[in-house]
Amino acid sequence: MSMASQVEYGAAPLKLGVGKEFGAFAAKVAFADLPADVVHEGRRGVLDWLGCAIAGSRHPTIAKLLAGVTALGSLERVPVIAHGRKLGIMEGALVNGQMGHVLDFDDTHMEGVVLHNSSPVLAALFATAETGTFTGQDLITAYALAFEAGVRVGKASPAHHDGGWHLTGTLGSIAAGVAVARLLGLDTQQMIHALGIATTQAAGMQQNRGTMSKSFHAGKAASNGVLAAFLAREGFDSSDEIIEGRRGFSRIFSTVSKPEAMLFELGTDWHIVRNGYKPYACGIVLHPMIDGMIELQRRGLTPDQVAAIEVTVNPGTVRITGVKEPQTGLQSKFSVYHSAAVAFLDGNAGREQYSDRRAVAPEVVAMRAKVSVATDEGFRRDEAHAVIVDNAGIRHEAHIDHASGTRDNPMSDAAMEAKFLLNAEPVLGKERAAQLAQTVWQIDTLADIREILHLAS
Amino acid sequence: MSMASQVEYGAAPLKLGVGKEFGAFAAKVAFADLPADVVHEGRRGVLDWLGCAIAGSRHPTIAKLLAGVTALGSLERVPVIAHGRKLGIMEGALVNGQMGHVLDFDDTHMEGVVLHNSSPVLAALFATAETGTFTGQDLITAYALAFEAGVRVGKASPAHHDGGWHLTGTLGSIAAGVAVARLLGLDTQQMIHALGIATTQAAGMQQNRGTMSKSFHAGKAASNGVLAAFLAREGFDSSDEIIEGRRGFSRIFSTVSKPEAMLFELGTDWHIVRNGYKPYACGIVLHPMIDGMIELQRRGLTPDQVAAIEVTVNPGTVRITGVKEPQTGLQSKFSVYHSAAVAFLDGNAGREQYSDRRAVAPEVVAMRAKVSVATDEGFRRDEAHAVIVDNAGIRHEAHIDHASGTRDNPMSDAAMEAKFLLNAEPVLGKERAAQLAQTVWQIDTLADIREILHLAS
Repeated sequence: MSMASQVEYGAAPLKLGVGKEFGAFAAKVAFADLPADVVHEGRRGVLDWLGCAIAGSRHPTIAKLLAGVTALGSLERVPVIAHGRKLGIMEGALVNGQMGHVLDFDDTHMEGVVLHNSSPVLAALFATAETGTFTGQDLITAYALAFEAGVRVGKASPAHHDGGWHLTGTLGSIAAGVAVARLLGLDTQQMIHALGIATTQAAGMQQNRGTMSKSFHAGKAASNGVLAAFLAREGFDSSDEIIEGRRGFSRIFSTVSKPEAMLFELGTDWHIVRNGYKPYACGIVLHPMIDGMIELQRRGLTPDQVAAIEVTVNPGTVRITGVKEPQTGLQSKFSVYHSAAVAFLDGNAGREQYSDRRAVAPEVVAMRAKVSVATDEGFRRDEAHAVIVDNAGIRHEAHIDHASGTRDNPMSDAAMEAKFLLNAEPVLGKERAAQLAQTVWQIDTLADIREILHLAS
Repeated sequence: MSMASQVEYGAAPLKLGVGKEFGAFAAKVAFADLPADVVHEGRRGVLDWLGCAIAGSRHPTIAKLLAGVTALGSLERVPVIAHGRKLGIMEGALVNGQMGHVLDFDDTHMEGVVLHNSSPVLAALFATAETGTFTGQDLITAYALAFEAGVRVGKASPAHHDGGWHLTGTLGSIAAGVAVARLLGLDTQQMIHALGIATTQAAGMQQNRGTMSKSFHAGKAASNGVLAAFLAREGFDSSDEIIEGRRGFSRIFSTVSKPEAMLFELGTDWHIVRNGYKPYACGIVLHPMIDGMIELQRRGLTPDQVAAIEVTVNPGTVRITGVKEPQTGLQSKFSVYHSAAVAFLDGNAGREQYSDRRAVAPEVVAMRAKVSVATDEGFRRDEAHAVIVDNAGIRHEAHIDHASGTRDNPMSDAAMEAKFLLNAEPVLGKERAAQLAQTVWQIDTLADIREILHLAS
């Protein structure tokens, strides 16, 4: 059906077929093909996303989203996380997807892209799960595959982020579409069409950072992916060259196009194993500095000993976190000063440290006035140096090579579960949170994954 | 809430505020502000769109779309055009929107953009109409405003089409969001947010030309617009600078940015009055040549007199319509040869002339073998020259300066109604088609526009 575009755009040679090859792989990959570390990272990713969504369920943004969706009306099929109610398939994907991203506490894949993949993908998969009986192995397979789709399309389009798009919306749609298509067991041609229909819906603008529409991109991507796969299953078609074609994603969403990245080491290199998680409830660029401040606190320094705090970070960190005197919890997430102060005072940088209350607490305000920030072009984004100068003028120093939660310094399973419980317990209670964690750690043994949202809703 | 992006991107001066000014206008414009020609063009646009959607309702693409949407499930609130069933608000917008565009027979605004505005906008408005009681004057006001939104954002982003996007998807989302927001009576701040939420969903790739996903863009845009407005009504927010901001639409969707076009003669120059309609069921670039061939037929020339047909068109026309021997109805729409042949043989170029049957009819195949095509760089896209050389060697010539249906040679109301009846009668029957036409000509007197879809479904 691509006759018209060939005629219009001439016959210049293109590297065509990568979408088809990727689609063939995606339609055929099976749980048995997944290495053990891929499966385990799948468990960790599901756990982390659920915790973020449960914690996010109480965010005021979600109340507004639910009000709008309720006014439109929908069927009641998908449990809304932590709300005890249900929505239609696409609406459930939308709401649960935004919930996972609203705190900006969800996983991040940093490899050539900045992609919060799990919010769109898992919201789409769990919504789809309500339309049939799917096993935990089905889900993990689809979930692992989603990282191949999302990250590889990102690598095929290396200037995509600089172009101004929010990748969790754009690549998230694509990843969700492929994942749902795999869960539904679509054949190769249907899978290629699902990729095409999902990609043609890809959207989300960085201009909306700092607004409710930013996390909306994650939910909308989930909903887009569901729709793409359900249409493809019915024979609804699209271009077979949606990524690499002359007007394909890697060409119109990026000034640099490397479609061959779609296939490089496909099936042997699994991107999910390098997924990153956030130990702290703020932008990932602040994490190494927070690690350093927590380390200094653990050495036994006390607030009354502190004369000055000096932190050194990559210049990019300061560009997006330069707020000196935040007045609200949201603003405090964009403050390197606040983050250094609370990390030292509380030994943590969780949701409590970024609350409205903590943003204006006198001891925090006093401590952040002591913070000065230097930048070093030579520092990686996951590197930082933290110094406390005590009242005697002695310098106490900590250097962080790789922030915790990154692929070079991963969070342990115990740390992942601790984060999950901190997120889930205040909403679900201790018992249900523990039961949910236990279920997720064994997700690949589940005969019907509906059990997960049932426990979480 | 835009603190983060200001910090990140620095403080380089931008022409900010055009989105806010546009939003203030959009929230306040009233039916009484509309000149009579705007209102009348609204009536014509509604009639034309309904006819296209009714005719499109039987297209196989729509059956697949409906199958997918049915598998997902929805409430039953919005009548599906010509199907005697109902769908949820967003699903109804989706399906009716794609129906309007699936034949590529719907209206086209050519001014700096190539935008099929009515399919996304009217599908969104009529779906929204099922959530309350809205008058025909409410609808016409919102509809006229949608052209201001869609076309002006297109003018603010002059390289948008060349960038590879399908404007009916991208600008259609924006136009639909603004239109629904107006129908719902949102205030200025909500309107600005509706614009932002709609724009951040804008999607649709030219790569999907020739596939079912192309007309899908129109339906998805309708659905996006509905969602944007319903969320904005609940206080869901977005960037106030979604068009002109540093990562705004006019900057990331276009290599050239002219945000001031959003406001130029706003409220005095109404773009809807220059909306274009298609008398023929094929790409608009073929229309002037078809006009010429029909004129030659009307002069009494008969097929057996024809030795050769020579047509001259703008070079762009041949690039997208160069198919010499189409085998299907869809292929025949991309054939200048077929179009010339049927226009002369049948005196028309409607859906029948682009049917599978007609694509392979012996007399058509014989006639199109006589067609030769020349191009002239000096011809506008709405200009053509047609020549029939008869068996005696006499040249019969017709020159078309402006194709019928364009702003310089508009279709009469009678021609619009004739096109509507040809589209609607085979599906709805003569009586209902006539009743629907009569109702639409008086749409601005309706107390409840639900009557329209009720008659059309």
